[in-house]
Amino acid sequence: MGNILSTNHIKAIRALSAKKYRDETGLFVVEGEKMVSEAQESDFQVVEIWRRDEIGYDAMARISQLSSPSPVLAVVKAKPLNDELECQGLCIALDGVRDPGNFGTIIRLADWFGADVIYASEDSVELYNPKTVQATMGAIFRKKVIYCDIPRLCRRFKEAGLPVYGTFLDGQDIYGQTLSKEGLIIMGNESAGISPEVAKEVDSRLLIPSFSNGPTAESLNVAVATAITLSEFRRRL
Amino acid sequence: MGNILSTNHIKAIRALSAKKYRDETGLFVVEGEKMVSEAQESDFQVVEIWRRDEIGYDAMARISQLSSPSPVLAVVKAKPLNDELECQGLCIALDGVRDPGNFGTIIRLADWFGADVIYASEDSVELYNPKTVQATMGAIFRKKVIYCDIPRLCRRFKEAGLPVYGTFLDGQDIYGQTLSKEGLIIMGNESAGISPEVAKEVDSRLLIPSFSNGPTAESLNVAVATAITLSEFRRRL
Repeated sequence: MGNILSTNHIKAIRALSAKKYRDETGLFVVEGEKMVSEAQESDFQVVEIWRRDEIGYDAMARISQLSSPSPVLAVVKAKPLNDELECQGLCIALDGVRDPGNFGTIIRLADWFGADVIYASEDSVELYNPKTVQATMGAIFRKKVIYCDIPRLCRRFKEAGLPVYGTFLDGQDIYGQTLSKEGLIIMGNESAGISPEVAKEVDSRLLIPSFSNGPTAESLNVAVATAITLSEFRRRL
Repeated sequence: MGNILSTNHIKAIRALSAKKYRDETGLFVVEGEKMVSEAQESDFQVVEIWRRDEIGYDAMARISQLSSPSPVLAVVKAKPLNDELECQGLCIALDGVRDPGNFGTIIRLADWFGADVIYASEDSVELYNPKTVQATMGAIFRKKVIYCDIPRLCRRFKEAGLPVYGTFLDGQDIYGQTLSKEGLIIMGNESAGISPEVAKEVDSRLLIPSFSNGPTAESLNVAVATAITLSEFRRRL
């Protein structure tokens, strides 16, 4: 029986629900058969795997961060997120996205639509937050995420001859715009949108128009707006 | 001082976080300045409004369903959700959508893109779930939602001469399809997709293709897929 989880070990895994301990240890947790097998197939280092069948329901309930404990949980080594800027291909930059579900969904979208790198401002939500990780549905193991200064990133893209796009409530109808194959697409914070310092670096201001006949919501959810924007860039290929 | 909330009254409002009590009383709760003012401007009947400034932080914390108690909370009378089927315009039908955040986001999208009615199967999540209500960002007060039998709804649309669309992982590339101005768009359950009984009523099977160069996620989140689908229908107008 090599599969007995000590109380101290349970505490150590539970502690990874807090950012403080994730930062200290450089570890994070993933749950579910699909997520764990994607972690194993990736170049992330899987430190340990715990199965409900082996450790029992109660032990799994104690280490799981989900409301109903998953059949399998892995502790995975985090990757550094301050890599060199890669200014090529189609990339996304998030300017202060705060909701982990939105962040995870955007990484899943970047994976689906073949966007190359997801950049995030330093004040964006943490990648290894369990809600972000789960919302990626495994895309976290395939996509590169880099935290950086977004205005500087915009300037680097422009120096490389690539356009910088942003979505704004007073931009130009995205459906009628010429969109290039490569470039940087900036998505803003859930309530404030793109910050002024970043906005002034944008070459092309895009708007997803409303088709409502009457009064409507002021904006779309940021993950949903990213979906429509990436779809528009890709369908033209 | 007409603004003292009795303990029993607090209990009665708190109880509305449970579906059982929402069903018994026909009431639901909305929170936040924007949501409450949209409720007041709508044809929903606002039963009572409580402001943090008037009842105090502690009382608001007890009745609020949010992690940080909002400045204002309203108790609103629910509308019946089994109205007559309206087979005209562009409508959405949800076949077993279970996540309240997804349901609310889809209602917000229907509002933005001017879809007329949102139909939901009886096994879909409840409209008046607080998480659904908040995710609509006020669109719940503008859009008609009807629970019904989806296969019967599909037949009614076809009898009215309107096409029935559905999204499938083996459908035809949506970007190359002719999409009509009116019709019914069916979106499936988060993990199982569109059920077989509904699938056989679909005229046109649509696929949102992946543009990933390598392995990717098996599917998109249902709210995100609805966003891309509605965008495709509307941009052709």
